[in-house]
Amino acid sequence: MTTSPATARDHQHQAPGYAGHKADHLARLNKIEGQIRGISRMVTDDRYCIDVLTQITAASRALQEVALGLLDDHVRGCVDNAVRTDPDQAEQKFTELNDALRRALRL
Amino acid sequence: MTTSPATARDHQHQAPGYAGHKADHLARLNKIEGQIRGISRMVTDDRYCIDVLTQITAASRALQEVALGLLDDHVRGCVDNAVRTDPDQAEQKFTELNDALRRALRL
Amino acid sequence: MTTSPATARDHQHQAPGYAGHKADHLARLNKIEGQIRGISRMVTDDRYCIDVLTQITAASRALQEVALGLLDDHVRGCVDNAVRTDPDQAEQKFTELNDALRRALRL
Amino acid sequence: MTTSPATARDHQHQAPGYAGHKADHLARLNKIEGQIRGISRMVTDDRYCIDVLTQITAASRALQEVALGLLDDHVRGCVDNAVRTDPDQAEQKFTELNDALRRALRL
Repeated sequence: MTTSPATARDHQHQAPGYAGHKADHLARLNKIEGQIRGISRMVTDDRYCIDVLTQITAASRALQEVALGLLDDHVRGCVDNAVRTDPDQAEQKFTELNDALRRALRL
Repeated sequence: MTTSPATARDHQHQAPGYAGHKADHLARLNKIEGQIRGISRMVTDDRYCIDVLTQITAASRALQEVALGLLDDHVRGCVDNAVRTDPDQAEQKFTELNDALRRALRL
Repeated sequence: MTTSPATARDHQHQAPGYAGHKADHLARLNKIEGQIRGISRMVTDDRYCIDVLTQITAASRALQEVALGLLDDHVRGCVDNAVRTDPDQAEQKFTELNDALRRALRL
Repeated sequence: MTTSPATARDHQHQAPGYAGHKADHLARLNKIEGQIRGISRMVTDDRYCIDVLTQITAASRALQEVALGLLDDHVRGCVDNAVRTDPDQAEQKFTELNDALRRALRL
């Protein structure tokens, strides 16, 4: 879980795009942590494979929902701000966003 | 996190297909739980959106790896066993597997 | 679009698992080919990005539906047959299926 | 393959965000159309299920690459332009983008 020096330098004194939705994202992540713990308990209890798989799919979907929310916050916050104030930084944001989408789409 | 009465009845006295890999799956799930906690910490610390997204993608991929492992165990264990011993149960297993794959592929 | 010599040798004189659903798969693939052609036409006509993306998502989902159908046919046909007749070949089928699922889940 | 009246009205006299990459997107789509035709031929020829599945996964990945390219063009073109010129339209673009990502991520 490392941060490149560049992004650390650029962003350390600035609120992230998701600042207005922090509590919401934390609540969702907390719920997902509970889902993962529940899945571990199912495995410990020798629950049926397909029932475990169903819960993994649900947790995976919940995680993608958090990613979608963060992407929305990022575009409305960080990308919007860069476009309005600094063309060079906007260019960097577009590339970063594309790389993040590539990873999210598993390409 | 419910189990249908039918699957509970059919499987309660039988080791799941993943019995031989329980420790491995639990170790992976434990690591994923830690990843989710780390993501919550990043949000709490106002870390940059894109860096949080990168970690969500990594956790999501790790979760799919567990799903893939369970699917493999299920086919080699439960499906194989049903095919060799009980054609009616095999039919049910094929349908269940297809439904699980549909959910995993998000269709 | 190559086939490994091994699979070509093993399967060349045998109907594929999807033999009973060939017409159905071909109809779906034909429809998808039309969807792709429609997407090309949208791009040629300078249609709005988001509208093009919506159609790409629809074609992508239709393609996954064909994959899911083929997986179902494969398990009910080829895997079932191998388990009932040849333990060594069954082992190979399980590994092949797992590799195919890994690719389909983009892992 | 319908377009909502709103997007048709807003965009009909304006070059799409992907205008600069049209030839590239059309070449990729043309190649994908050939891939789909090749998959149909494999099914017609009774080729082995797993080999057909491998080609479906490849075509599906190529389609996601086109989607990723269009998303990049859309953000650098349409979203950037809206942010710089019209806050109300920017708001609409953010919502549209989020909806498109939701569909692309299959949520």
